Amino acid sequence: MAWTHRGCCLWLVLLCACVWGHPKPMGLGRMDVRNCSTSPPYLPVTAVNTTAQLAALRQEIQTQSLFAYIIPDTDAHMSEYISKADERRAWMTGFTGSAGIAVVTMRRAALWTDSRYWTQAERQMDCNWELHKEVGTTLIVTWLLSEVPAGGRVGFDPFLFSIDSWERYNTAFQGSDLQLVSIMTNLVDVVWGSERPLIPSQSIYALQEEFTGNTWQQKVSDIRSQMQNHPQAPTAVLLSALDETAWLFNLRSNDIPYNPFFYSYTLLTDSSIWLFANKSRFPLETLQYLDSSCTGPMCVQLKDYSQVRDHIQNYILGDVKIWIGTSYTTYGLYEVIPKEKLLEDIYSPVMITKAVKNPKEQALLKATHVRDAVAVIRYLVWLEKHVPQGTVNEFSGAELVDKLRGEEEFSSGPSFETISASGLNAALAHYSPTKEVYRKLSTDEMYLLDSGGQYWDGTTDITRTVHWGTPSAFQKEAYTRVLMGNIDLSRLIFPANISGIEVEAFARRALWEIGLNYGHGTGHGIGNFLCVHEWPVGFQYNNIDMTKGMFTSIEPGYYKDGEFGIRIEDVALVVEAKTKYPGAYLTFEVVSLVPYDRNLIDVSLLSPEHLQYLNHYYQTIREKVGPELQRRQLLEELAWLQKHTEPLSARAPGTSPLASVLAASTLAILGWRA
Amino acid sequence: MAWTHRGCCLWLVLLCACVWGHPKPMGLGRMDVRNCSTSPPYLPVTAVNTTAQLAALRQEIQTQSLFAYIIPDTDAHMSEYISKADERRAWMTGFTGSAGIAVVTMRRAALWTDSRYWTQAERQMDCNWELHKEVGTTLIVTWLLSEVPAGGRVGFDPFLFSIDSWERYNTAFQGSDLQLVSIMTNLVDVVWGSERPLIPSQSIYALQEEFTGNTWQQKVSDIRSQMQNHPQAPTAVLLSALDETAWLFNLRSNDIPYNPFFYSYTLLTDSSIWLFANKSRFPLETLQYLDSSCTGPMCVQLKDYSQVRDHIQNYILGDVKIWIGTSYTTYGLYEVIPKEKLLEDIYSPVMITKAVKNPKEQALLKATHVRDAVAVIRYLVWLEKHVPQGTVNEFSGAELVDKLRGEEEFSSGPSFETISASGLNAALAHYSPTKEVYRKLSTDEMYLLDSGGQYWDGTTDITRTVHWGTPSAFQKEAYTRVLMGNIDLSRLIFPANISGIEVEAFARRALWEIGLNYGHGTGHGIGNFLCVHEWPVGFQYNNIDMTKGMFTSIEPGYYKDGEFGIRIEDVALVVEAKTKYPGAYLTFEVVSLVPYDRNLIDVSLLSPEHLQYLNHYYQTIREKVGPELQRRQLLEELAWLQKHTEPLSARAPGTSPLASVLAASTLAILGWRA
Repeated sequence: MAWTHRGCCLWLVLLCACVWGHPKPMGLGRMDVRNCSTSPPYLPVTAVNTTAQLAALRQEIQTQSLFAYIIPDTDAHMSEYISKADERRAWMTGFTGSAGIAVVTMRRAALWTDSRYWTQAERQMDCNWELHKEVGTTLIVTWLLSEVPAGGRVGFDPFLFSIDSWERYNTAFQGSDLQLVSIMTNLVDVVWGSERPLIPSQSIYALQEEFTGNTWQQKVSDIRSQMQNHPQAPTAVLLSALDETAWLFNLRSNDIPYNPFFYSYTLLTDSSIWLFANKSRFPLETLQYLDSSCTGPMCVQLKDYSQVRDHIQNYILGDVKIWIGTSYTTYGLYEVIPKEKLLEDIYSPVMITKAVKNPKEQALLKATHVRDAVAVIRYLVWLEKHVPQGTVNEFSGAELVDKLRGEEEFSSGPSFETISASGLNAALAHYSPTKEVYRKLSTDEMYLLDSGGQYWDGTTDITRTVHWGTPSAFQKEAYTRVLMGNIDLSRLIFPANISGIEVEAFARRALWEIGLNYGHGTGHGIGNFLCVHEWPVGFQYNNIDMTKGMFTSIEPGYYKDGEFGIRIEDVALVVEAKTKYPGAYLTFEVVSLVPYDRNLIDVSLLSPEHLQYLNHYYQTIREKVGPELQRRQLLEELAWLQKHTEPLSARAPGTSPLASVLAASTLAILGWRA
Repeated sequence: MAWTHRGCCLWLVLLCACVWGHPKPMGLGRMDVRNCSTSPPYLPVTAVNTTAQLAALRQEIQTQSLFAYIIPDTDAHMSEYISKADERRAWMTGFTGSAGIAVVTMRRAALWTDSRYWTQAERQMDCNWELHKEVGTTLIVTWLLSEVPAGGRVGFDPFLFSIDSWERYNTAFQGSDLQLVSIMTNLVDVVWGSERPLIPSQSIYALQEEFTGNTWQQKVSDIRSQMQNHPQAPTAVLLSALDETAWLFNLRSNDIPYNPFFYSYTLLTDSSIWLFANKSRFPLETLQYLDSSCTGPMCVQLKDYSQVRDHIQNYILGDVKIWIGTSYTTYGLYEVIPKEKLLEDIYSPVMITKAVKNPKEQALLKATHVRDAVAVIRYLVWLEKHVPQGTVNEFSGAELVDKLRGEEEFSSGPSFETISASGLNAALAHYSPTKEVYRKLSTDEMYLLDSGGQYWDGTTDITRTVHWGTPSAFQKEAYTRVLMGNIDLSRLIFPANISGIEVEAFARRALWEIGLNYGHGTGHGIGNFLCVHEWPVGFQYNNIDMTKGMFTSIEPGYYKDGEFGIRIEDVALVVEAKTKYPGAYLTFEVVSLVPYDRNLIDVSLLSPEHLQYLNHYYQTIREKVGPELQRRQLLEELAWLQKHTEPLSARAPGTSPLASVLAASTLAILGWRA
């Protein structure tokens, strides 16, 4: 999936919000959006009345001697998706988009969100709220400076601020006479009270050993030896991202949509293991699995989720040093650790270790992709039959592909909300159909499907774009060049340990050549039954160097506003490359196994290297997916697979004229003789 | 020139020091290096006795109540090359290499330098000095922590510390009980006394208007309007890099080797212009040119170079904000400006503005490159005749090419020390021949020439690698792939405003494909009679986005230790690209105009696009350099140029067999008839 949704951790969204074009200005007199300039204001039926909760929040703001309160859009773990109980900004404002920050003062209430969400905000908010269309900490602080009297206190929940965002606000406030005040009680939660959705409470379970790369004991030992070998000799690692704790202990649950995680922190020290979570959610077998009844260095001691800050405050009284990943640790924990007791890295050693899959994890993820390909191929075969009948729409299609994945072994639901987009909808960055709003699939339009699954053995993410009728020359040209970019990056040989940002342009060159491009990133890491956007692997500036054993998506695209959208996304494993002269070189092994749409490929644009790569990929699909289809007697799908993986050959602009010359010359000679 | 020398500003060297391989361990019993483990120690004749200056320095250290003193390798402007008067570290240690930091305590004296210089240091230093072979602030500070007693003071000259290096030392000292103390008097200078070389005192002159892109008044107005339009409304810009002041006022002199600069600072405020330099060096015409007798906003008020810190301390008493480029401003100025009165950018607006050449500056630089090509072609023609006679060596060759450049109009000397390297010497990162040590040029070896000139209208830098005999298959393969990299990057079409680091891999792909690479950067900016390594343009992480009007070198290479070295370097202008679909796209226009060595090109490796590009480049060389050679009646060179720019055609693995098939089939038919 391209970064039209948030990254697995929140900061990803910041990278993509700015690159999509601004939408057209909204028409006057529209009935689906609010109009606060009339008297009385016009509100569409979708707008939420927020007067009561605003009044109650202002009461709390006053009680805390504040003048303003900042309401971010995240949870205490900087998660990509957040649970209902964390949707504070949505509940306060009515606006349910995934990105947007609200600020409430005694007089005014304002929301900042980027262009993807302007229309949605105008539909969902009442006139208590002003909408700010340019986003950024500096703009919010500038607004606060004009709104809050000198000496005024601006409150925030430190558990909803990353260290970075706290630093940005703090810097912006410097030199002003306002105070930025960390308030441990979340004021929205106070107001929300008993109406606030319950925090999920399903069981926390251990993955079966066959689905794990290592036991939790091995992982703990590995991280501890990294602590010991570190020149600064940290005595503990603090894990704040939910996938860190899930990975370390091979535990899963279901607190967050699309992600099998549970609310938790871990403090792994040189002599103890502290896991902070809702203790009542651990069944006996999980407690036994964790050796939670003892207190030795290989026993997991459970403490309540809410005790993490107190525990750390106590821990730092000793001669200790805590290793953190600053990208996703919140200010709520950061502010209690003295600087000299902190070892700050962008990512914790758990995040870095998790990024490189061992051979067992690689095998698991590859096996997942074979089954995932079966589900997608079944869907594509079904579409090929049913779209011409006019009976399929984006939403019913999305439901079907989710259902087909659900029928695969070890399935545990989709890994993100399926993007099923026809025609011009595929050009929208943030589009998913709903039960109410969808477009019919048609042989006159291109269709983009970006979807993925969670399975006990792995997480998948694949995008295919298809056309069942006659694509335009421009559509074929754009599709073929997107494909060329996918191939050029996938087949690239590059030195070990260089950063993705240094090679991602190979996915764009074929588009750039004719003046086209795409406005999102080129790929992201992916987990084993973990995040579909798993940091810190990828092709952006803040990703770490490429290493053998990492998995990344490769997903160039092209989007023509108001007309169509193309994206071709595969997941690939970073593997050693064999080069003519010896050296530490890497390349990609694509593990997604679904053919590209031949109807959209203009073979004349492809180089011999492209064709060779494509045909080799087709052969791999046949070898890996064919037997699985056979085994399950999916014979129609098998026939489809054979047809769509026939080797392609160049229409060879050179060969055919030369052959003609040869024939002509032979004929001429014969003719001359005759 | 590749970054085997320092960048124009000092920080460049840090990027390249680490990527070259470590040299072989030194042999035991060698007579050319010191041996401090024998009694008495063995010292080669090249070692410098530093006992006296060390004793004197320790006296000064004691007088200042210090326990240690740090001696960096730079000047107060973070210049790429430094004058004799700034070679403090060399004078103290005996070691003359361009990179290395010395620290002297009451008991010990130590030098840290990277692998390029280990042998040189062992040859030049006596046994007063210990050599540390791993470099980095942390290592120096770790050594100091073990050496200096608790509470001890470690002194440094704040004018020889960049802000960055001060921050690195400061961070490394945090938590320790040592004090890092800024000492305004340079202790080495005190000891050096009257022996210290004089600071250069040649006249400071204004460039003729025909060689300038704009008058200094226009440039001052432009920078002032950037100040006014900046949201933080700075009241002044402080210029610390020598090329900033030289560019702003179109002034030049000769204080620094290879760079036409003079020691100076500028404080450009909204209402005044202060230029700090040696006032006695301005002749009357320069004073008039600068309108230095008045005090209005467009008058340049001269103050002595040494007054800059006091002047700033006085200036910051007002309601002001000073805009600086933090990459090359020293801690000596930074420490006196309160944080809230600072506007910090990595590069000042002068550095950013200077990076984009206006049409007149572009035309000047292009004209320079035509004359520079004549000099290089004259040299290559001469080599072709004389190398087979065995009468040329690296040093005499370097002297000749410098002399030939010197004969060109507007010449003002070389822009860096000529790298003239034959055979295995070309594989060394830091090689230049000397009068004493050189290698004979031969038809059995490859020869690499990396050289450039300063001219009143521009600065040049070009590398050509040639072979006059029969290159090995591997040499041809490597050369051709270096050339493919040069072409792939030069012909790339890319979106406006992306960073060089995102595209530089195109210069490496052809090498990577077979497991080869090079350990230096791919290019750097270049000035108009300014730095040959002009920041902040280039292909590294800390370069700014590419923009129309920038000039950069493009210089992939390949180096085979102990055998040969290849580099192909051109200077290219960033220009708008015409694309099939409209958009803001850029590409490069190569302005270096010397043919590549056909003897080293394996045409069969080149794609049709490579050949098309090459032949177009050859045509450009003919059109631009041909008439100049004709005009000057350099007919031998003109004939050489024609020969070396004949269009190349594919040995077309397809064509020639097919032609044979055609012929054979024709013959067969004829034969059958006969």
